[in-house]
Amino acid sequence: MDKKAMVYIQSGGPTSVINSSLYGAIREGQRHPDKISHIYGSLHGIEGLLHDDLIDLGKEDDETIELLKQTPGSILGTSRHKLPKDHHDAEYMAILETLKKHNIGYVFVNGGNDSMDTCLKLSKICNELGLDIKVMGVPKTVDNDLAETDHSNGFGSAAKYVINTVKEICIDASVYKRGKVFIIEIMGRNAGWLTAAVDLLPEGIRPDFIYLPENKFDLDKFLKDSKAKFEEKGYCIAAISEGIKFERDISNARVDSFGHIQLGGAAADLAHIVEDKLDLPTRAIELSLPQRAYCFLTSKVDLEETIKCGELAVKYALEGMSGHMIAIKRVSSKPYQVKFEAVDINKIANVERVVPQSMMKDDTHMAPSFKEYCLPLIQGEIDVKFEDGIIKSAVLKKVRA
Amino acid sequence: MDKKAMVYIQSGGPTSVINSSLYGAIREGQRHPDKISHIYGSLHGIEGLLHDDLIDLGKEDDETIELLKQTPGSILGTSRHKLPKDHHDAEYMAILETLKKHNIGYVFVNGGNDSMDTCLKLSKICNELGLDIKVMGVPKTVDNDLAETDHSNGFGSAAKYVINTVKEICIDASVYKRGKVFIIEIMGRNAGWLTAAVDLLPEGIRPDFIYLPENKFDLDKFLKDSKAKFEEKGYCIAAISEGIKFERDISNARVDSFGHIQLGGAAADLAHIVEDKLDLPTRAIELSLPQRAYCFLTSKVDLEETIKCGELAVKYALEGMSGHMIAIKRVSSKPYQVKFEAVDINKIANVERVVPQSMMKDDTHMAPSFKEYCLPLIQGEIDVKFEDGIIKSAVLKKVRA
Repeated sequence: MDKKAMVYIQSGGPTSVINSSLYGAIREGQRHPDKISHIYGSLHGIEGLLHDDLIDLGKEDDETIELLKQTPGSILGTSRHKLPKDHHDAEYMAILETLKKHNIGYVFVNGGNDSMDTCLKLSKICNELGLDIKVMGVPKTVDNDLAETDHSNGFGSAAKYVINTVKEICIDASVYKRGKVFIIEIMGRNAGWLTAAVDLLPEGIRPDFIYLPENKFDLDKFLKDSKAKFEEKGYCIAAISEGIKFERDISNARVDSFGHIQLGGAAADLAHIVEDKLDLPTRAIELSLPQRAYCFLTSKVDLEETIKCGELAVKYALEGMSGHMIAIKRVSSKPYQVKFEAVDINKIANVERVVPQSMMKDDTHMAPSFKEYCLPLIQGEIDVKFEDGIIKSAVLKKVRA
Repeated sequence: MDKKAMVYIQSGGPTSVINSSLYGAIREGQRHPDKISHIYGSLHGIEGLLHDDLIDLGKEDDETIELLKQTPGSILGTSRHKLPKDHHDAEYMAILETLKKHNIGYVFVNGGNDSMDTCLKLSKICNELGLDIKVMGVPKTVDNDLAETDHSNGFGSAAKYVINTVKEICIDASVYKRGKVFIIEIMGRNAGWLTAAVDLLPEGIRPDFIYLPENKFDLDKFLKDSKAKFEEKGYCIAAISEGIKFERDISNARVDSFGHIQLGGAAADLAHIVEDKLDLPTRAIELSLPQRAYCFLTSKVDLEETIKCGELAVKYALEGMSGHMIAIKRVSSKPYQVKFEAVDINKIANVERVVPQSMMKDDTHMAPSFKEYCLPLIQGEIDVKFEDGIIKSAVLKKVRA
């Protein structure tokens, strides 16, 4: 068997463990020097293949590779470029040229449902042209909305971050006799998994209400509930998904110099409504980028599964598989057990998995089944390496291939 | 010598180690059963003394007391109530009555410069009335703006949180070929210590520019620099203190139903200006409450000094001292050595200490002397206790005195 190179692509938004999948893939690649000639990274997602901008990860030293496990942000850079539908488009020719030039036989695409579209298109064209190039997907998204997998790599760590951060905010929010209406905005445009996670907190240090995009947002009920809770305990805490829909009063919205109406974040806009309608003090808190970029609240379960997914993608590709993504299937929750399977990308690309109604107790609280589902995913802490009080991160030399 | 009770007051905004000063005070109090009859906590700051709402901390179990070291938020509750100037005001009579009723001989006020005003007024009135009640101050503020102390308890941990969080954001911000103008808002109305701290990060993973309230904010220069940096590297990161002053265009500001103009946060408003004037994509990130409420990036140096300050306040009060605050004096930076002193509260109450010009290199970067000052304060990590993936926090029984 001829030796061939492998190339790894990071796509879409980062997670705190995104570079741990890469770590797993690199380590598995290194275990097969008889089959893998080079381990390349594609810079800025698919754009690296489009413009022949690859780096040789074999030139990085071992300490850097180990540090990938505590380095947030897509270390290879990322992209939201969507490949064209037409298989005859020049973009595919450019990509295939890069693959040929570097004798690449294995392509790994790490991403969410959009990125799996890239993975699907690449695997199809290689298949149609009869090229001996295996294309495999490695799951990743803090949103947890990938189909066909029990959960997505990165979700457990993001959930652990969100849960613990919201807990600290809940404690902080409770210290004054007369507090505020706190509105905490959490990532999730269409799927409310991360917002749901905060309902795992014990009573007294969790939000009073959570609002997922899966449910219709009832503004009047929200205002009524907030007011009642504020009157009862002197403050109120709501956690909302960024994607909840409500009618925003644009009569006093900002208009930029191009005449475009500028909406604020959901929490900020909702806070304005509370001030207007209830005349109560508010504080909007957007958890923002740290949700997907914190390495010091990484879930050990998530980290280990993520490394495993990277390893298995390489292992299966070397065994001849293509057009599949590594998925996690839950065997049991108590004790927590999973198995890993390769799933046909056709079932995953562009599909969104939202929180099922069966996991909700009512519009603003989760059912015990959600707790059973989510709690195992945030278990275990990792030993983060610091230098002079600052968390160490991998910095690549980026030697071009 | 008669045994007397001690009472502990938390005042103003929390820090991540605020309950560690309390821990130190409790432990020191327990070491003197011959002098201290009871250890009380005043609920909601000075209001507990005003309304005779005290709890008996002696009724809490040992595990709870230990957990204080990793519990954010003022566990006794807090208040921003300012005592009246007139010493004959009924409020003082109410407070003295509570002190007398519980046979309190030692009062500890934990807070920033406003809270030291409370401490000063209480110690003065006790002194004037010839009461044998010692009143001592315990420093605390993430803002680091207390006078007469090298740094304030809580600042080191907040700085460590801000530095590491901004680092992760900087890494996340760099992953796209064409990114955004990121504006990160950090606590500090008049003193920019926390914002200055992020300049400790290594080049490449730190903001391009920092803006402190100590300097005049030049909007035109900010826009010019941001544009140039964006063109150079595809994105730009600015860290600003919440207190920087710039002319906000209120012509398109929100107006609430009471006719009040609603300004956004400084970062959000500045982002709008960048969008309007430069037509570049932006992202405003307010670090918000977690800056003062995170226990898992606590600096060990800060934690240990904070406990020590709590202990020393009790020790000195038992030795007969009153009207003083425990201050930290730096002996040397390399190696880092400090000593603790009691300083007359008159020199501290209502005084604000801002970042000196000598620590700045220019308007948007810090000088090496600041690094030498700040770096020792973020050193050392603590071993945080988790339970099922969630950080454990102390919950008080709050048995009323």
